[in-house]
Amino acid sequence: MLINGKADTQIAATDRGLQFGDGLFETIAIKDGQPCLWRRHLDRLLSGCSRLAITPPDADQLYDEVFKEIGEEKQGVIKIIVTRGPGKRGYRPQSNTTPTRIVNWNRSPAFPDQVYQRGIIARLCSTRLGWNPALAGLKHLNRLEQVLARSEWHDPSIQEGLMMDAADRVIEGTSSNLFVIQNDKLHTPDLSRCGVAGVMQGLIIEVAEELDIPIVVSDISLHDLWTADSLFVSNSLIGIWPIRELSGQEFSLDAIPDKLMDTILDRGFRNE
Amino acid sequence: MLINGKADTQIAATDRGLQFGDGLFETIAIKDGQPCLWRRHLDRLLSGCSRLAITPPDADQLYDEVFKEIGEEKQGVIKIIVTRGPGKRGYRPQSNTTPTRIVNWNRSPAFPDQVYQRGIIARLCSTRLGWNPALAGLKHLNRLEQVLARSEWHDPSIQEGLMMDAADRVIEGTSSNLFVIQNDKLHTPDLSRCGVAGVMQGLIIEVAEELDIPIVVSDISLHDLWTADSLFVSNSLIGIWPIRELSGQEFSLDAIPDKLMDTILDRGFRNE
Repeated sequence: MLINGKADTQIAATDRGLQFGDGLFETIAIKDGQPCLWRRHLDRLLSGCSRLAITPPDADQLYDEVFKEIGEEKQGVIKIIVTRGPGKRGYRPQSNTTPTRIVNWNRSPAFPDQVYQRGIIARLCSTRLGWNPALAGLKHLNRLEQVLARSEWHDPSIQEGLMMDAADRVIEGTSSNLFVIQNDKLHTPDLSRCGVAGVMQGLIIEVAEELDIPIVVSDISLHDLWTADSLFVSNSLIGIWPIRELSGQEFSLDAIPDKLMDTILDRGFRNE
Repeated sequence: MLINGKADTQIAATDRGLQFGDGLFETIAIKDGQPCLWRRHLDRLLSGCSRLAITPPDADQLYDEVFKEIGEEKQGVIKIIVTRGPGKRGYRPQSNTTPTRIVNWNRSPAFPDQVYQRGIIARLCSTRLGWNPALAGLKHLNRLEQVLARSEWHDPSIQEGLMMDAADRVIEGTSSNLFVIQNDKLHTPDLSRCGVAGVMQGLIIEVAEELDIPIVVSDISLHDLWTADSLFVSNSLIGIWPIRELSGQEFSLDAIPDKLMDTILDRGFRNE
């Protein structure tokens, strides 16, 4: 693990990342020794820093650190954390804090081909996502909602849980974004009130447009979910996972365009 | 600073407190070398651990550590943080994590008598509190909403900002609870959707009942706020601070019962 560029394993207990969750993170797939979708991850991180008024890391330095941390590894995942840095007591950010930068390589589970071909089993979580437009979209460090949602089940055959907001809108998975296909049209939830704007979700929206697959960003109701032709979730590590069963209801995988799937599983795992 | 009972300043970067804000904290006033309202702070901390399924710290051990950390100091503040401890990547809490326990003494500002007699200037924040019944009431480490709200103003004459939820209900200050007095009745917001159940707020509710001051826990609208006879905020460090001006509107302090104020500024700063 690299902390502010040096091999280390510890941070100051006064770091505002610990004290308040005052920071951001990125989870990046490593393939053939390269960080996949680097430019998109970097853009989201820098945009998050801007929204939280955290001094952004130097992009070139961070890129170098990512490669240093990958070392000789070919596959895996790099998690980057950027916090506002150590601070004094109290919520008010001081103007002179020095951000903390953590770059950490981890092994990632190999996902069997079967998951992509047969789909996953998912469930609907009871833990809700709170509305906060000021934080919506950000991949910030306040993740107790996801921790509680992911604590709801222990059955290892269930791979993901979908979360709703207080108005029963379906927003995302605990660690993925959601896509709903109805009448050959792709829908993905509006994330202006809550949720994380996924890097893979962004790529899927772009690729759908390139492939002339109709795509709509809008509110998704429970009714939209249950009447969908097909469902899938996405994130930077998995690409696309079709959902074959949600809380006991079975879904066909047939409405997911092969071309979209193939393009994402290719372009989603390149360093671009 | 004591970390798991030992003098230290650093925690593992893999700690879930940093990774996800997966933990709780308490801020305790120290007076005459004693932790004020210890039993109430401990109760809230243990109840928070139970709600988040974090193994609770041993109460006697924690109490010893608080005194060890206070040392020869007479005044100040002790901040306790309890996290789920270091973990592997992913939101799911592992069953075998060992919680992290941080006890840290800090100097606290002396509040001039004038603040209590003349009241403070407050403002209404634009950052909202998201609803999450599963987290409401807890003093957890996901505090970005408070960080953003406290970042909204730099004028040092403004001592507190009040926060609303998405439905324009007034919930609390960035680091205090709110009381509204109307027709000799005390109102304090219902915190079942969002907000922190303050230890001092709890004491005020009890003392009001003992003093036969009518007290209601209910939703508080902006209209309730602007038409209040008097307003005050509370927390463990300040006790009670009357609000003499809110976003430009002046408020009388006359409706705040002297007996309530005197009792809180006495009983709120004892070790009981």
